Amino acid sequence: MPRYTDVHRSLKGTTFKDVAAAHQKDLSVQNKYGVMFLKFWVDEKEGTVFCLSEAPNREAPAKAHGEAHGLLPHETYEVLEGS
Amino acid sequence: MPRYTDVHRSLKGTTFKDVAAAHQKDLSVQNKYGVMFLKFWVDEKEGTVFCLSEAPNREAPAKAHGEAHGLLPHETYEVLEGS
Repeated sequence: MPRYTDVHRSLKGTTFKDVAAAHQKDLSVQNKYGVMFLKFWVDEKEGTVFCLSEAPNREAPAKAHGEAHGLLPHETYEVLEGS
Repeated sequence: MPRYTDVHRSLKGTTFKDVAAAHQKDLSVQNKYGVMFLKFWVDEKEGTVFCLSEAPNREAPAKAHGEAHGLLPHETYEVLEGS
């Protein structure tokens, strides 16, 4: 399945703990959309969050976010991963 | 050490293979800057690259990129990671 990095911006005042709680909500609905949320990264100062997922298509992670907590991504990238 | 996600944009036409080669150059100079490049993600269609690193400060990953291949990031985020 393709991997996606989605970017959420303009979340100033949102803490890592807030995002971890939202991520738990993502995990609770992800199967319904065929999504597997893998990791997330939070820049608390900038209010920017990155979510990495595997999903059947570009729309699926946003749909899962929408149902889980309503915080839709501002950008979604289909990515190939290397290390 | 803090973790940083840096974002490189406007790289249309750049392939995953190109980025993997640049990443190898990053690895060859990273110790000089105290940086450990961990992973990278490439959206070939958008020409966007994300690099995740551990580094002593925000400037260090860009300095390593500068020496390695000259492709400086457009944005750098200090991030906390969760899964």
